[in-house]
Amino acid sequence: MSDRPNTPLLDLVTRPADLKQFSDAQLTQLAGELRSETVSAVSETGGHLGAGLGVVELTVALHAVFDTPRDKVIWDVGHQCYPHKILTERRDRIRTLRQEGGLSGFTKRSESPYDPFGAAHSSTSISAALGFAVARDLGGVTPEGLGDAIAVIGDGSMSAGMAFEAMNNAGHLKKRLIVILNDNEMSIAPPVGALSSYLSRLYAEEPFQEFKAAAKGAVSLLPEPFREGAKRAKEMLKGMAVGGTLFEELGFSYLGPIDGHDMDQLLPVLRTVKARATGPILIHALTKKGKGYAPAEAARDKGHATAKFDVLTGKQKKAPSNAPSYTSVFGNALVHQAAKDDKVVAVTAAMPDGTGLNLFAERYPSRCFDVGIAEQHGVTFAAALAAGGMKPFCTMYSTFLQRGYDQVVHDVAIQRLPVRFAIDRAGLVGADGATHAGSFDIAYMANLPGMVVMAAADEAELVHMVATAVAHDDGPIAFRYPRGEGVGVDLPEQGEVLEIGKGRMIQTGARVALLSFGTRLAEVQKAAEALAAKGITPTIADARFAKPLDRGMILQLAADHEALITIEEGAVGGFGSHVAQLLADDGVFDGGLKFRSMVLPDTFIDQASPEAMYKVAGMSAEQIEAKVLDVLGVASIGEKRA
Amino acid sequence: MSDRPNTPLLDLVTRPADLKQFSDAQLTQLAGELRSETVSAVSETGGHLGAGLGVVELTVALHAVFDTPRDKVIWDVGHQCYPHKILTERRDRIRTLRQEGGLSGFTKRSESPYDPFGAAHSSTSISAALGFAVARDLGGVTPEGLGDAIAVIGDGSMSAGMAFEAMNNAGHLKKRLIVILNDNEMSIAPPVGALSSYLSRLYAEEPFQEFKAAAKGAVSLLPEPFREGAKRAKEMLKGMAVGGTLFEELGFSYLGPIDGHDMDQLLPVLRTVKARATGPILIHALTKKGKGYAPAEAARDKGHATAKFDVLTGKQKKAPSNAPSYTSVFGNALVHQAAKDDKVVAVTAAMPDGTGLNLFAERYPSRCFDVGIAEQHGVTFAAALAAGGMKPFCTMYSTFLQRGYDQVVHDVAIQRLPVRFAIDRAGLVGADGATHAGSFDIAYMANLPGMVVMAAADEAELVHMVATAVAHDDGPIAFRYPRGEGVGVDLPEQGEVLEIGKGRMIQTGARVALLSFGTRLAEVQKAAEALAAKGITPTIADARFAKPLDRGMILQLAADHEALITIEEGAVGGFGSHVAQLLADDGVFDGGLKFRSMVLPDTFIDQASPEAMYKVAGMSAEQIEAKVLDVLGVASIGEKRA
Repeated sequence: MSDRPNTPLLDLVTRPADLKQFSDAQLTQLAGELRSETVSAVSETGGHLGAGLGVVELTVALHAVFDTPRDKVIWDVGHQCYPHKILTERRDRIRTLRQEGGLSGFTKRSESPYDPFGAAHSSTSISAALGFAVARDLGGVTPEGLGDAIAVIGDGSMSAGMAFEAMNNAGHLKKRLIVILNDNEMSIAPPVGALSSYLSRLYAEEPFQEFKAAAKGAVSLLPEPFREGAKRAKEMLKGMAVGGTLFEELGFSYLGPIDGHDMDQLLPVLRTVKARATGPILIHALTKKGKGYAPAEAARDKGHATAKFDVLTGKQKKAPSNAPSYTSVFGNALVHQAAKDDKVVAVTAAMPDGTGLNLFAERYPSRCFDVGIAEQHGVTFAAALAAGGMKPFCTMYSTFLQRGYDQVVHDVAIQRLPVRFAIDRAGLVGADGATHAGSFDIAYMANLPGMVVMAAADEAELVHMVATAVAHDDGPIAFRYPRGEGVGVDLPEQGEVLEIGKGRMIQTGARVALLSFGTRLAEVQKAAEALAAKGITPTIADARFAKPLDRGMILQLAADHEALITIEEGAVGGFGSHVAQLLADDGVFDGGLKFRSMVLPDTFIDQASPEAMYKVAGMSAEQIEAKVLDVLGVASIGEKRA
Repeated sequence: MSDRPNTPLLDLVTRPADLKQFSDAQLTQLAGELRSETVSAVSETGGHLGAGLGVVELTVALHAVFDTPRDKVIWDVGHQCYPHKILTERRDRIRTLRQEGGLSGFTKRSESPYDPFGAAHSSTSISAALGFAVARDLGGVTPEGLGDAIAVIGDGSMSAGMAFEAMNNAGHLKKRLIVILNDNEMSIAPPVGALSSYLSRLYAEEPFQEFKAAAKGAVSLLPEPFREGAKRAKEMLKGMAVGGTLFEELGFSYLGPIDGHDMDQLLPVLRTVKARATGPILIHALTKKGKGYAPAEAARDKGHATAKFDVLTGKQKKAPSNAPSYTSVFGNALVHQAAKDDKVVAVTAAMPDGTGLNLFAERYPSRCFDVGIAEQHGVTFAAALAAGGMKPFCTMYSTFLQRGYDQVVHDVAIQRLPVRFAIDRAGLVGADGATHAGSFDIAYMANLPGMVVMAAADEAELVHMVATAVAHDDGPIAFRYPRGEGVGVDLPEQGEVLEIGKGRMIQTGARVALLSFGTRLAEVQKAAEALAAKGITPTIADARFAKPLDRGMILQLAADHEALITIEEGAVGGFGSHVAQLLADDGVFDGGLKFRSMVLPDTFIDQASPEAMYKVAGMSAEQIEAKVLDVLGVASIGEKRA
């Protein structure tokens, strides 16, 4: 507490309306205090630091000029929303960020009226802002009123197709709508793609500093009304605006680029836009990710995400890890396979580090493709790579693969093309909460004809599954694995090619069979130890495959046991449902079987540690044990029914 | 047969290599013959006519200049591929288009090596072409070789985010890649969006005819190599090229616009590009949908899709309909609701006619939003409309909603926003085949927390479900209904608001309960009639809801019957899986229950009539009857096991 920064002006602010009392100079000072408070808070909680530091001035300016929550400010992705939360009645809880029961690390409707539209996945903000703008003009209502709609979107997010779709629609509808392009030339990884080069050219020709002065004066000259057209606006701003035609071609008035850290540019530009805008306007603000905190500015990822850290040194306080992460095991296994087979290539959608493909990209730069935030394109691109004789690993988080679902169905599965889907962050993910949970992939992949679906029970299994995927050339194959560290098993020198559709027995017992799909296996084994003390030795099997199922093994387990319990880190409709379908088709239920399917519950689970989240989901070792006791009719201590 | 057109040159062509023998003048004549043959074939089969007629010259020019199948020509969507099929060893089967056992109405890898990448959903072609281009440069192989990669994409398809993602990536990778923008200002509906206006401006300033002459001469002046840049190319082509900066900003060399029906422009442009291209090039070709066939040119939809017709008059031979289509029932019901509630709005992704929203758009133009081919944006836009106090109906085909799946999860379900999903073309769809089947929506929607999922058993039920959706303001709700005509029941004057999560009993019987979700109910009732003749009277229930399930009704059905059979027009993981989960959780299987879940089989089913497709799926009345007899242990005549 004693290390807290001195924030005299910020201390006067509970809500954005309090900003109206300040002069422009005071707002500039306030921004500095807000920056210090943000650094201080994240040093205690960990989280996304760099993005917020890049928009401190923008956050102050927006709340000073516009009337939130009546005006809707929509932060794309939401990584940058911590300063916004501090200004919007949540400073008292800002040191609970991303903790169980605390503030979300993203904007969230249920958390505050100042978060009119939650985010976490990228590139949704323009669509959302347009929806509010249209609702406003049609007489829609919200409890806080419905005024301006303002999307703040990064240059990385702008490269996603969804943002383009929204711009295309907004330019057509011509509603008053404000898009602020927060251009820091940096999403999570350095930006890729032609749009990024285009944005760089917008300010490459005239050095940024030279038109700073012009910007200050020019805003007073802005045409009224704006709808007289981009052309006139551009002429008036000559010397300041050096481009923006791409946005103008899409029907937006383009303003910029302006210095997103200079309140003397931000405030007058926003005030003018507020006073005079009639159609869609794009304000191009240049910012620096990590701005104003030296350790973040110096970091390769500009302080994108950080553990708790020491404010003075920036040194992160990471707990020592006991085992390598699944992500790094995957990355290394893929590099190993790629060394043996030059047809192995990889595709990531702007997440080379998060997916472990950075290892692959360093070693085989010409065989690793970062397509940008573009899962739709990425999946189909991978499908064509497969059609062209390559062995593509399409490496995405479970929750982001949802963005490419139609392409998985239409371009991969229907064509039976051997794309290898490496699905990271499967299951519950911890601090990122419900928006990042990988809950649905088992269901949405396993019901596709011809798709092979695997889950790794531990990191050694993951190595085998990478090898299996390389070898599987007869149609698509997917394997999923969770966020975080492995369980610490020895890693094999060589991945072994698994037989498709064969599970493995872990231990043979009696009465009840526990059939696990994925990394709950460790909890199942813990539960079995506890059960052994009660005289029950369950049979344990690792299914390995949700599709095709190991029909022989499953029917044998059903035949040999009084009860069969499946467990998976996914929602209903997945592995357990496929097992139930098999058992039903085969008439196994006709004569009676105590069958249970433990799946993620029918609720979105808020952030906490993964362990705590799985407890909420009813999937801890204790809860598995209780389920077994309940099914077998043995009362467990303290709870009658799990 | 006697009406077949006279096609002396086309008769000499079996495969594209045969085109090499012809002079340019002969190729022009060949194009005319190909147009006649296309009209003649589609007059016999029905299908997509206008799109193919618009690319007849382009098809001939591409196959004459490039070396297919070594060079990969990828037709976006595939509606326009009939002339291509005629030239590529499939003329002998062209009159089987879209028929059971016949040629697909789209390109299809399994059908021909000249279809290197199948299509049906829009905007995948640039991603696919880029994949082939990259595979080629990395030493990938295909049985036919791997040369140039050429995407042919319409202006409507170009407006989808996925196409933008692919352009952005292609402009970055700088591989030799050819994109032909087939600009007919017309996708299925007239185009919407700012991109469309932009394309119009590209040739609005200089009348098309004036630079036609320039184009012919200019191609010989093209710079070599192309990579010297778009700028120089543009200068060289002054008077011809009037714009294209948007594409140039994305890293493409822009060539055009050229007359896509003039072989004297197409052939030299393609030859020059083939000889000299080094990076990504976009050729902007202007065409007319329906070109050269007067009835198509005159039609509002430019002959987009047609039944069989008389070649001379263009008059379509449609079978008289017995009942209104589900689509029109939906459209009318929504108009009815909108008249009572001015908050009702609708969103379509470029399918106002196909979804029945044309009725709504005519009556309430300011409340109907055609967002273009942009399902991702459309879903999130609808979510924000809901957040802004409106009652949005997001109206999409089941198979296209897959494009917006992440947005359904992230922007709608997690935020519990009351978006109403009207899911048309649920289940198997007939002539459009596997790519258009609505097989997965029950599964991918029903496992989302808080989502209400309904299916209409008949057209009257659909009217009730529209009313129910309007009234349901506490979270999202979805209802699905099939392609085609209703069953002919009387339509209610007023839709009735159904109780959420309550099914309805259709008839009470004994021994076996048939629990239907959706329009298989009619077949179930037919099966019941046949069973009655054998002394078995099944109980029949219409579940109405896959989520929330009617728990009481289902458990009672299980308790009262020896067997319970669910049936749905969807893949495993959906309704039957949710029922199985309920029964398992409740211990119903412990004591034995003959439970079966009839779902779509684990295969993609090729085009045929919907009835024939459901027979393949094992879901006809006879097959339901056989399933009941089998489960009850009563031998059916002629088949022991269904």
